[in-house]
Amino acid sequence: MKKVLITTVPFGDKNRIPLEMLEAAGIEYLINPLGRKLNEKELALMVSDFDVIIAGTEKITDDVMENGKNLKLISRVGIGLDSLDLLAAKRRGVKVSYTPDAPSPAIAEFTVGLMLTMLHSVHVSNSQMHVGHWNRYFGRRIPDVTIGVIGLGRIGKRVLNLLRSFGTPKLLLNDISPNLEIDREFKVEWVTKEEIYKQADVITFHLPLTKESKNMVRKEHLKMMKPDAILINTARGGIINEDDLYDVMNEGHLSGASIDVFVQEPYSGRLREIDRCILTAHMGSSSVDCRTRMEREATEEAVRFLTGKPLEGLVPEHEYTIQREGLER
Amino acid sequence: MKKVLITTVPFGDKNRIPLEMLEAAGIEYLINPLGRKLNEKELALMVSDFDVIIAGTEKITDDVMENGKNLKLISRVGIGLDSLDLLAAKRRGVKVSYTPDAPSPAIAEFTVGLMLTMLHSVHVSNSQMHVGHWNRYFGRRIPDVTIGVIGLGRIGKRVLNLLRSFGTPKLLLNDISPNLEIDREFKVEWVTKEEIYKQADVITFHLPLTKESKNMVRKEHLKMMKPDAILINTARGGIINEDDLYDVMNEGHLSGASIDVFVQEPYSGRLREIDRCILTAHMGSSSVDCRTRMEREATEEAVRFLTGKPLEGLVPEHEYTIQREGLER
Repeated sequence: MKKVLITTVPFGDKNRIPLEMLEAAGIEYLINPLGRKLNEKELALMVSDFDVIIAGTEKITDDVMENGKNLKLISRVGIGLDSLDLLAAKRRGVKVSYTPDAPSPAIAEFTVGLMLTMLHSVHVSNSQMHVGHWNRYFGRRIPDVTIGVIGLGRIGKRVLNLLRSFGTPKLLLNDISPNLEIDREFKVEWVTKEEIYKQADVITFHLPLTKESKNMVRKEHLKMMKPDAILINTARGGIINEDDLYDVMNEGHLSGASIDVFVQEPYSGRLREIDRCILTAHMGSSSVDCRTRMEREATEEAVRFLTGKPLEGLVPEHEYTIQREGLER
Repeated sequence: MKKVLITTVPFGDKNRIPLEMLEAAGIEYLINPLGRKLNEKELALMVSDFDVIIAGTEKITDDVMENGKNLKLISRVGIGLDSLDLLAAKRRGVKVSYTPDAPSPAIAEFTVGLMLTMLHSVHVSNSQMHVGHWNRYFGRRIPDVTIGVIGLGRIGKRVLNLLRSFGTPKLLLNDISPNLEIDREFKVEWVTKEEIYKQADVITFHLPLTKESKNMVRKEHLKMMKPDAILINTARGGIINEDDLYDVMNEGHLSGASIDVFVQEPYSGRLREIDRCILTAHMGSSSVDCRTRMEREATEEAVRFLTGKPLEGLVPEHEYTIQREGLER
């Protein structure tokens, strides 16, 4: 009997459909019994006789695959591939699929919510109110601020779309190459990252973790920013250096930062000491509908594979190229 | 020399234009030296020889006016008139003006930010992260929820407009009479308040404080709501009974409440003990642009009055009717 290991948790929790799909296809499955993100050693021990992993963001290294003697497919729930050694998978003949479209609507909505909350100083007033201080802060409205977006893929573009009904902020965008479709639909300027750091009131990151983006925002960049700038990272942990962010915020720089993703998850670092830092537990993609869609799509791929049907979510070649050109891990 | 008392603070803080307008017209002014909302006694003592009050939400009663022997105009920064005895003002020949349009864009944006924050469980995860707990919560997206709006005046209608780019939630609306303009622009249902309480995932209030709306939402109504419903009050303190809200949330009912306005401000009540209650210091209207516009409009009215020009912001007769028919104070 074919066996599927589901490492990402919770799974099938809000909606049982993915589990029912496996059951209907007569596929045996095990949901990660530790109920939290596995480390490399735990996964290596657990993976031994499974044919497929339905995976989260845990590290899936060459060593893990070495222990997965039957492993033939990794079906990733979500989009980021930085935790997965694609080149080792290719060498070993392990196929890799993912669900790149499913999380985007949730992450974009999550991001705009954080932006509004911080622009209106809700995060600061709320933490003060709960300890007994009544201070009225001024907010800034979307049409009155400059918003910098770094990374204009599926999610960055959706953020722009959600902002449409709020009036027209000044939009400064940065990506490897300007997106002409966006130019047709929005009034924007394509600028360098440094120009965004210097000019924007809100800076939000929507790019994958690569050699270039890892530690991309360091102390010297944070210090370029306006004293009341607002940062949002709902992309991947470590794009903004966590220690540097702590240091500058601890000195009073920046009016807010929302961090949903961390180098080490669960996060237990010093940003917890900063009240005007909004911290969330890697939840951007976890809306009920998007999470269900991701789980369903990743499960469908596993079922297709184990019932001999063609795969539909295979990771494209350019993702392998990115890793070949040197993702640090 | 004509004298203006500015009771609402901070004033002219982000933008000095209103103060410069008074100076240019040769009008003497005093900004509330206590730097916080005045109580009735303090205002009665302070008002004695002023011709005009540029007022906030402090109580302006018959007794206060009795002490303001020179008082001829109250120019209210903002829209709510529940704190002001309009009938006493009329009896004493004191004119009352306000700035009803200025705060709406800020309050609507503020409201949508709170809605997104709570729907994506940011408020819960953030407070847990800061004390060291990593729990991943599921969010709900706007197109997947039922949003109830009670009060579809200037602000309620703007909330609907801001939601446009997020996709189409189910919209349940309630007002004294359905607004046909909204029916043309949105797909909505006009229902009773009770139906909103029972069916909506998000309930937001945008109505003035009147005899009918005071304590409108009591324990029996809160208990009708879904266990994971979300409430937002950016309108006036006391529309939702604060003690009842504390009681039901303390028992675990409701997944979030955002309260920006309180019966007694500054607020120091028990809702501070509830982590999933987002508390802010009556800041909904305080975006830099909207606050500046309110201050400028209220000051222009004072200058017009003191330089013998016709007033443009006089409170309309129906506001007097509302009070005549019995606002409890």
